Amino acid sequence: MEQQRRVAVIGAGAVGSYYGARLAEAGRDVTFLMRRDLEAVRARGLRVESPDGDLHLEAPRVAASSAEIGPVDWVVCALKATAIDAVPKLVGPCIGPATRILVLMNGLGLEERFGAWFGRERVFGGLAFTCINRGDPGVVHHLDYGPVNIGHLLDDPAELAEAASLWADAKVVVTTAPSLLRARWEKLCWNIPFNGLCVAAGGITTDRVMADPALRDAARAAMEDVVAAGNADLEAVGAATRIDGPTLIERMLALTETMGTYRPSTMIDFVEGRPMEVDAIFGAPIERAHALGVATPSMSLLGALVRVLDGSRIASEPG
Amino acid sequence: MEQQRRVAVIGAGAVGSYYGARLAEAGRDVTFLMRRDLEAVRARGLRVESPDGDLHLEAPRVAASSAEIGPVDWVVCALKATAIDAVPKLVGPCIGPATRILVLMNGLGLEERFGAWFGRERVFGGLAFTCINRGDPGVVHHLDYGPVNIGHLLDDPAELAEAASLWADAKVVVTTAPSLLRARWEKLCWNIPFNGLCVAAGGITTDRVMADPALRDAARAAMEDVVAAGNADLEAVGAATRIDGPTLIERMLALTETMGTYRPSTMIDFVEGRPMEVDAIFGAPIERAHALGVATPSMSLLGALVRVLDGSRIASEPG
Repeated sequence: MEQQRRVAVIGAGAVGSYYGARLAEAGRDVTFLMRRDLEAVRARGLRVESPDGDLHLEAPRVAASSAEIGPVDWVVCALKATAIDAVPKLVGPCIGPATRILVLMNGLGLEERFGAWFGRERVFGGLAFTCINRGDPGVVHHLDYGPVNIGHLLDDPAELAEAASLWADAKVVVTTAPSLLRARWEKLCWNIPFNGLCVAAGGITTDRVMADPALRDAARAAMEDVVAAGNADLEAVGAATRIDGPTLIERMLALTETMGTYRPSTMIDFVEGRPMEVDAIFGAPIERAHALGVATPSMSLLGALVRVLDGSRIASEPG
Repeated sequence: MEQQRRVAVIGAGAVGSYYGARLAEAGRDVTFLMRRDLEAVRARGLRVESPDGDLHLEAPRVAASSAEIGPVDWVVCALKATAIDAVPKLVGPCIGPATRILVLMNGLGLEERFGAWFGRERVFGGLAFTCINRGDPGVVHHLDYGPVNIGHLLDDPAELAEAASLWADAKVVVTTAPSLLRARWEKLCWNIPFNGLCVAAGGITTDRVMADPALRDAARAAMEDVVAAGNADLEAVGAATRIDGPTLIERMLALTETMGTYRPSTMIDFVEGRPMEVDAIFGAPIERAHALGVATPSMSLLGALVRVLDGSRIASEPG
C-alpha cells in the first residue's frame, strides 16, 4: 500500500472545502487552512450537502496558518483569484522539495505566477465546472455539476497521471487536459461571455442570456473573440494544438441551455457586493489578445464594463 | 412684414420648453402642449436659466390638449422617443394642409414614422446637441451647448432654408444638414457609444469613459460599428454622400474631452429610473445593420445590455 498523501487545502471557501472534503472522503490526509469557518469546523466538523452524496467529516484537520500545516505532498489552492498576491505567504510554508500544487482557481495566467514563485514543474491547473455555495459556517452546498479538468504547466503526461491518481476513488469526475493553456482558453470561452453578460446586464442568470436573441448573439460574438485570442496565444507559444471554435461554441451554448437559472461566480460576487475576479477572467485574456494584435471587441467591452462595475462597488463600500 | 408663424411645441419637457421658449423670445407665436407643468406655467410663466441668457415668458400660450391648439405652421415635436406611438393622437390635431413638422427627438427612423402618418414632404429632423434638465415646475435649466442641426426627410434644399428661417433671430445656433440620414447616423456615432457605455457601466459620466483606456477603446470600436452601418445604409438608399468615419470619430472624441462630467440623456433616464430611448437610439440602428449584413459587435452588445437594463427597471417599478 502506497504512503498516504498529505494534502493542504489553501483557501477553504466553498470550492476548496468541497473538493478537499471529497479528497478526505477518498482517504487522503487533508488539512484545511480556514479563516471564517475555523471554529465552526473544529466544533462540529465539515458538512457537505450534494446531489452526489452528502458528506460529514466529523473531525477534519484544520489550521489557522500555513506554518501549522508545513510541507505536504499536494497543495490544492482554491483562493479567489483576487487574492493571488497572497499566495507566496499562504502557500509557501506548505511547499517542500516534492510538493505539487493544484491551482483550483479561475482565469488565465495564474499557474504562471505559481510557476515563477515555486517552480513550473510542480504546478497544475484545475478547472472546476461546478456550482457550490457556502452555507452556515462549516456547511457547503454543492448544487450541481462538479467535474474538474486538470492540466500541467509543462503539459507533462506523467505528471498528469500523477495528478489524476490524487483523485483516485474520490467522488469527483476528473479529466486531464493535454494542453493546460488550451483548457484555460476553452473555459474562458464560457466564463467571459456568461460571467460578463450576467454582470453587465445588471445581475441576471444564464437562462436570461439564452432566452434573449440579442444577448445570445453577443455571447456568441464574445466566444468567437476568445477563440481567436486563444488560438493566437497557442500559436505564439508554439503549441501544436488549437481550439476547434465552432464545435466548442455550439457545445457550450447547448450546455448552457441545460443549466437553467445558473448564476456565474462573477455574477454572484457582483450581486453580493464582493470583489469580482476581473484580472484573471477578463484582464489577462484581454491583455494577451492585445499584445498579440487580435481584435476582440466583445470580450474587451465586457471586460471594460465589469472592471468599472467592480471598481464602483468597491469605491462605494462603507469605510 | 411676413405673417407671424404659429408654432406648437408638442412634448414640452425640458428640451421642448427650452427651444420653444427661444422661438417665442424671437417673436414666433408659440403654444406649448403641457402636462406636468401646465398649472405652474399658467400661474407663473416659463422660466429658462441658461448660459446663453436667462429668459422669462410671463404668459406663454399653453394648452392641455392638441385639439385646443389646432393647425399651426410648425409643429416642434420634442416627445421622448419612447412616446412615438402617441404621435398621431398628440400631433395630428395640429396638422393642416401647410403644416411642417420638426422632429426634435433622438434616434433613427422617427422621421419615417412621421412621414408615413403625415406626409414625407412636411417632415424635418432636428438633432439637438445640448444639456437641458427640468427644474421645479415651470423652470428649465439649460446647462450647456444647444446647437440644432436640421435635416429634411426628402433632403429638399428649399425646405431646409424654410426650416432655418423659423429660427431667425432665435438664440439658437441652427445648421442645416444636406442629408438627414447621414446626420442621424453621425449623431448616433456619439449617442450609441456614450449613452450606451455610461448606462452599462452602471450610470457613469462621459469623463469616466474618456479617462479609462479600455472604455475609450470600446467607445471607438462602437463608433466604428456605427460608421460602418451608417455608410451601408446610405449606400442602400442610393445616397451620394458617406460618413467620413476617421475624421468624425476623432472630432467626437476631441469634443467629448471638452465636455467634463456630462450625463448623456439615456444615462439620466437610467439613474432616475425612467424608460430609456432604447428602440430609437439602439434598436433601429442595430436592426438596420443586421438587415444590411453589417457586423456591429460593440453596438449590438451595448444595445442588448441597455435593453435588458431598461426592462429590469420597468419590471421592478412599483405598481
